[in-house]
Amino acid sequence: MMCRLTSRAERAQLAMMLEVCAYPKPGNVDRCHDYKDTRFEHFLASTILCRPALEEAERGEGRIGEIIRHAVQQTNCHAGGNTHFGAFILLIPLVYGGDIPGAMKAIAQTDVSDAVAFYRAFALTAVRTYNTDAIDVNDPKALDMLREQEMTLLDVMHHSAKNDMVAREWVTGFPLTRRGTDLLLSFGPGRDTIVRMFLTMLATEPDTFIIKKHGREVAERTLKRARHVLDGGLSLEQFDSECIEQGINPGSTADITIASIYLALGEGWTWES
Amino acid sequence: MMCRLTSRAERAQLAMMLEVCAYPKPGNVDRCHDYKDTRFEHFLASTILCRPALEEAERGEGRIGEIIRHAVQQTNCHAGGNTHFGAFILLIPLVYGGDIPGAMKAIAQTDVSDAVAFYRAFALTAVRTYNTDAIDVNDPKALDMLREQEMTLLDVMHHSAKNDMVAREWVTGFPLTRRGTDLLLSFGPGRDTIVRMFLTMLATEPDTFIIKKHGREVAERTLKRARHVLDGGLSLEQFDSECIEQGINPGSTADITIASIYLALGEGWTWES
Repeated sequence: MMCRLTSRAERAQLAMMLEVCAYPKPGNVDRCHDYKDTRFEHFLASTILCRPALEEAERGEGRIGEIIRHAVQQTNCHAGGNTHFGAFILLIPLVYGGDIPGAMKAIAQTDVSDAVAFYRAFALTAVRTYNTDAIDVNDPKALDMLREQEMTLLDVMHHSAKNDMVAREWVTGFPLTRRGTDLLLSFGPGRDTIVRMFLTMLATEPDTFIIKKHGREVAERTLKRARHVLDGGLSLEQFDSECIEQGINPGSTADITIASIYLALGEGWTWES
Repeated sequence: MMCRLTSRAERAQLAMMLEVCAYPKPGNVDRCHDYKDTRFEHFLASTILCRPALEEAERGEGRIGEIIRHAVQQTNCHAGGNTHFGAFILLIPLVYGGDIPGAMKAIAQTDVSDAVAFYRAFALTAVRTYNTDAIDVNDPKALDMLREQEMTLLDVMHHSAKNDMVAREWVTGFPLTRRGTDLLLSFGPGRDTIVRMFLTMLATEPDTFIIKKHGREVAERTLKRARHVLDGGLSLEQFDSECIEQGINPGSTADITIASIYLALGEGWTWES
């Protein structure tokens, strides 16, 4: 049967689709769970609508900051709010550069125009918790400050890295993304592998989205509960219920999961089994 | 908040996504139900991967038969088998022409090259039940016969119309698609409306996919059971279980539902509420 190879943009979309479908993912939107204002369909709509930005990244023509802004803009057509801001920060350099070394090369070339575009993308989202420590995005003078200090987008990520595991990926060479991919490859094919990988990540790395929303203590407790599930002492379903009840959603771990699936799909891993 | 209008290709993709997510859809794959070999993710993967064909249709450059073949080819990259063959037969003229009158104009212009491309698309799928009555697709001489008889793709659909409600839409001017759209518009916004529309269609029109697979009697019985649900005498969940147990999946009604959602999205209906 003739079959065209999927493009990098399509692989990124498949990764976004597979991540949100995987279930049960403790605390996050999945096939079996919506949030009141952000539903499963919002994530899938964003997955469909960001295609032009991902194709732009694949062509490698524009600048990364501007492409992130386009992705955010393209996925603003629904009322579900931000769904993939963190995922775009990881996916766009990866699609742009093809793999981690390529992404790091592209990241090293960001300049102040990328930082400005990124802050403009910021302003389009309602991701209040996604504040960088560098410059307050709500400060009308923020863009002037970026320009005065000639901060690149990589500089911005350097400032945010301490409190944000997605920003940290830019600075440190995508180690968590790589680890997630290696987990998928070692666990083998099949969609159920995604939940196991997600849980393993959550059990070893405090989710910075949870830290920003609930504080470090809650993030550490969530990590321990995830480990408890892996140890067989707590059911995945019970852990999921606890997270939902307490409004704990490991959003940054989900972002990294998407990036890991993207790489894994390019390295022979398949969701079909 | 700045927001780009979605393109016709994107509206078609959103329609495919919304249809497969809607639940419970008696007997069909939905958010809560997979088939063993064709799973929810297969439908969503097809939704993502058919984008180039839909964009080709939107540009109105190529020929409809060839574009249908491209859509089938693009969605052949997974092991889930045919997911949207019937939906493409409806969506591609609609996206090509923009609306029903535009689709009918495009359909009237099909020629023997469209018929040949369509049979080639056929050969790529495993839709044995989607046999036309005109010419056996498994007959190696089928393409020669199409050429000798100078059959257009519309001619092929004429031959299939009696036993196939999707083909019938081409011949009769998309009345069921239109009806589904009107139902969505009258039921109002919200994703739950899709299930109600699907059920209403199923309760009034015998699904030809069921007829081909199980015979007319089963299709008529399914229609009556759907009506029973609308009357309040049978729960939707019970009806869904019955269908799944007996392998009854109203696939053609699902195809028409997708086309109806596509039109409704262009006429102000929204899945968000």
